[in-house]
Amino acid sequence: MEFVYGLWPIIETLRAKRRPIESLLLTDRAEEKGQITEIIAMARAQNVPISRVQRRILDDLAKDGNHQGAVLRVGDYPYAQIEDILEVSALRGEKPFILILDLLQDPQNVGSLLRVADAVGIHGVIMQERRGVSITSSVVASSSGAVEHLAIAQVTNLVRAMEELKERDVWLVGMDIGPNLPPLNQTDLNIAMGLVMGSEGEGMRRLVRETCDFVVTLPMRGNVGSLNVATAGSIALYSAWQARNWEGWAPKKT
Amino acid sequence: MEFVYGLWPIIETLRAKRRPIESLLLTDRAEEKGQITEIIAMARAQNVPISRVQRRILDDLAKDGNHQGAVLRVGDYPYAQIEDILEVSALRGEKPFILILDLLQDPQNVGSLLRVADAVGIHGVIMQERRGVSITSSVVASSSGAVEHLAIAQVTNLVRAMEELKERDVWLVGMDIGPNLPPLNQTDLNIAMGLVMGSEGEGMRRLVRETCDFVVTLPMRGNVGSLNVATAGSIALYSAWQARNWEGWAPKKT
Repeated sequence: MEFVYGLWPIIETLRAKRRPIESLLLTDRAEEKGQITEIIAMARAQNVPISRVQRRILDDLAKDGNHQGAVLRVGDYPYAQIEDILEVSALRGEKPFILILDLLQDPQNVGSLLRVADAVGIHGVIMQERRGVSITSSVVASSSGAVEHLAIAQVTNLVRAMEELKERDVWLVGMDIGPNLPPLNQTDLNIAMGLVMGSEGEGMRRLVRETCDFVVTLPMRGNVGSLNVATAGSIALYSAWQARNWEGWAPKKT
Repeated sequence: MEFVYGLWPIIETLRAKRRPIESLLLTDRAEEKGQITEIIAMARAQNVPISRVQRRILDDLAKDGNHQGAVLRVGDYPYAQIEDILEVSALRGEKPFILILDLLQDPQNVGSLLRVADAVGIHGVIMQERRGVSITSSVVASSSGAVEHLAIAQVTNLVRAMEELKERDVWLVGMDIGPNLPPLNQTDLNIAMGLVMGSEGEGMRRLVRETCDFVVTLPMRGNVGSLNVATAGSIALYSAWQARNWEGWAPKKT
């Protein structure tokens, strides 16, 4: 049982319909307007019981996260298998495009990165179980609900999962910082690809790094020597999608 | 008088040497190792008095920011003029590359964006005075100290500043969200450019938007309809730098 909080995360959870939904809790003062109205309508359409409670109860359930007056009581996050992710690629008829996270620690970084992963149409995400962040309510919130639509697999042995991808002809591209690494933009990213990001302080673990086919870096010319991992990963994801000719993106005609 | 907190921000402030430095405060328990050793050495070399104080005093001065055991008492942030920014372009022999921020509200977003602005070698940043974030200690910290090296101008009338740039042959490219906007990647960004970002909820103000030469959007194909402004801005800054052929970036030879 988990508590999804915040208006967008709740809307995306109700839209995605992937978790069992127990109930919707609103503050006794939440006015029925804007997104709250939308949430109430969706909850009613899905026969979700709605309760009005005191704000401090929501503060508690959201562990002081910014709940904006609403909390959704739901089943656990529905993790996917690696097989599901490769099936997304096959169904779309696209070369695999996968994000691999090695022990990231900060839910905000993970959420922010997964929001971008959704925006570029990633087929799925593979994360190391334990010791790194998992898909908590705080990650759901930081991703603005994007994780509700993503296929995310948690594995007990990330290196083994990476080896498995290599056997399936997926190339593994690790991001790191260093003057002697080839720059991301000089690497062909229009390939069946797993983009590997390491943890905030330490980067990729040694074995994870060694399992990559390429290790690349972002060009930088400023005074500060590194970027936040969520920022670097977001830029890398967009570069990769650009290399894939913005596959799946259809701008509306005016 | 301001208080720069956190190890990297303090190191960058001591490196940049742009502010008068009053004193360095360390917790009575901060061990002399790693970056703390580096900070103490730089402070001594610049004749900055060093005091040991109780942790709660630093907590107070850093307004509960993550000070990592060190606070630097310094003069106010040294804002630049628009003229200084154009001089950076002229000195480097590069077409102007400027970031323009219209009323951003969140110090973390602004800091994160300015860290990327430094990484891509922006010539300067122009911000609207009042009503938006200014360069507080919290922005210095979120930028990891990058702002200490950047030319940042605060103006009382952003639209007038934009008009002034147009007279100096700078093209203004605004970022927005919308299905009917041309995508960023179909716009030639290898031009004398000011990239304009609007505030978190509202985007650009109407007059600011109307003053832009182009308004463009980022391609997106996912379920969630928008990106955080710092993320979108970071991707746009890297796209622009890529269009400028990674000008000023010299990868080290192995």
